[in-house]
Amino acid sequence: MDPASVTIPPLKDLSIENITENTILINSQCPDARMKYVMERLVTHLHDFARETRLSTQEWMTGLLFLTEVGKICTDVRQEFILLSDVLGLSLLIDAIDHPKPKGSTEGTVLGPFHTHDAEHLDAGANLSHDPEGDPLLCICNVKDTTGKPIEGVKVDIWETDSTGHYDVQHANRTKPDGRGVMHSDAEGNFWFKAILPVPYPIPHDGPVGKMLKLLKRHPYRPAHMHFMFEKSGYDHLISSLFLRGDPFESSDAVFGVKSSLVVDTTTVTDPEMAAKYGVPVGTALLVHNFVLVSDKETSDLRDRNSTEALAKLGRKVKIVNGLPIPDLD
Amino acid sequence: MDPASVTIPPLKDLSIENITENTILINSQCPDARMKYVMERLVTHLHDFARETRLSTQEWMTGLLFLTEVGKICTDVRQEFILLSDVLGLSLLIDAIDHPKPKGSTEGTVLGPFHTHDAEHLDAGANLSHDPEGDPLLCICNVKDTTGKPIEGVKVDIWETDSTGHYDVQHANRTKPDGRGVMHSDAEGNFWFKAILPVPYPIPHDGPVGKMLKLLKRHPYRPAHMHFMFEKSGYDHLISSLFLRGDPFESSDAVFGVKSSLVVDTTTVTDPEMAAKYGVPVGTALLVHNFVLVSDKETSDLRDRNSTEALAKLGRKVKIVNGLPIPDLD
Repeated sequence: MDPASVTIPPLKDLSIENITENTILINSQCPDARMKYVMERLVTHLHDFARETRLSTQEWMTGLLFLTEVGKICTDVRQEFILLSDVLGLSLLIDAIDHPKPKGSTEGTVLGPFHTHDAEHLDAGANLSHDPEGDPLLCICNVKDTTGKPIEGVKVDIWETDSTGHYDVQHANRTKPDGRGVMHSDAEGNFWFKAILPVPYPIPHDGPVGKMLKLLKRHPYRPAHMHFMFEKSGYDHLISSLFLRGDPFESSDAVFGVKSSLVVDTTTVTDPEMAAKYGVPVGTALLVHNFVLVSDKETSDLRDRNSTEALAKLGRKVKIVNGLPIPDLD
Repeated sequence: MDPASVTIPPLKDLSIENITENTILINSQCPDARMKYVMERLVTHLHDFARETRLSTQEWMTGLLFLTEVGKICTDVRQEFILLSDVLGLSLLIDAIDHPKPKGSTEGTVLGPFHTHDAEHLDAGANLSHDPEGDPLLCICNVKDTTGKPIEGVKVDIWETDSTGHYDVQHANRTKPDGRGVMHSDAEGNFWFKAILPVPYPIPHDGPVGKMLKLLKRHPYRPAHMHFMFEKSGYDHLISSLFLRGDPFESSDAVFGVKSSLVVDTTTVTDPEMAAKYGVPVGTALLVHNFVLVSDKETSDLRDRNSTEALAKLGRKVKIVNGLPIPDLD
């Protein structure tokens, strides 16, 4: 439809029955076909939600004030809307849609609200946690492509909590980043660093999202994990985490992030030679993991194929433009 | 379903296909049947929205940052989430669902974000606007029930913009309420006051909602109107407005609020005796309107009937508890 040809009829006497089509009609003046489609589905679902629940004015106001509170508590270092999206299962869903993974590659999971952009660069072997109470952990990792070829120069962003289950940004007296760092893989795809054993922790539950979880009788805990983010031109951006096997919250993560393939075992460094090589005492906990990145091309092909199949199944006639579906009106 | 009997299966390896049912399952621990139903529909529509649009991570983040901005700009005197709900047609829909009107009663419309709780009490005949640039308007109104009986002691909240199209709260130097007041109907159901002729105005469009309207190529204008809110125990709370006929935006209100039955004509005071009686010069613009309130009982009966019919049509097996539907699991 040529946006210039949209004729808006008189918008008056709108009712439960006709408000949706008319809202979509006036929004259809939008010249961006993708935004128009997203808005059409948004308005449809928002209105259907109200119609199916017969939402009351009081409930509507409760919802608006809740969202206002969610916005108000956001700061540079706290993103309560991401948290809300996380506990509603939306974040996991979006990651699964946007970053499909072929078999054998490292699965993605939720970003969470605690990634920052100020983490310091770490040289190989550096220690990213300065919490003296943490249990030292040596991490030896590697990153390859789906053909098994090591990838050099991948930017790896790593972040974890301290031993009390708090990220650095949750401490009011934070003066510089800690429990986080950025490394680059070497020519063999290796990167290694010292950290502390992750611990389970509650997501921030002193705000509106925490109140909601309480009303839903849900616990706010995440199982012990360490976040990893991988970036290199030509490869699909990977947001993932590794989870420690046997955590009490392994199968009830408040943000639905656990994948079996991301649950790992730790061992300990027993070989004195190895301990010396990596500069840790014998007995130090050890995490060894190999990550597999997917190329941009593999990902976009798979994403397009998945989208086309899924939308055909839903009976939606769409075409993929710039990797995203819009209605196919031809 | 007895919440105590809900067994949550291991939540792991959640995918595009199973995240929705599992999110609903963990939320089903909620002991409040109504909240559980609302959350079930919310999660379903939120996820279906993402699945049908194949929402990208970047679009998701754009959405979250938009909502954060909406929350951030809210203050005691600016409610951007109501504005967002208004321009998406949700507010009109919620009012229509929650406050159904039998034929012959005064229709409701959107509250808008500018109602305040600090309006001063006005005696009969008082002037609610102190804008010297406004065109004086004499308003003579009456409020009856659906049988035609006058209702005494109805609390009537009235608010309008000044002659520049701004509510008092939009002026940074506001020291006390203006352009608003609270009156009570007398024994004959009458209330009258002096105001100014309403003018069309844009909803606040310097914030995120304004940016969104711009991207959608929508104008932000509302046709000239005056807000009225009626409250008396035993009667359904009525939020309404009167619109001046012939306004250039009469059929393209940015918030979908215009109903034909609420579009009114003004005349002028021509009778010197009447002018003297009401203390205005001959030639003053005059608005005469009779409002009809619906009893709580009439409203709740009609609402329950509408809900039952609408949900049956949607194929949802529900029962009405405290006026609101929940799944009927018997």
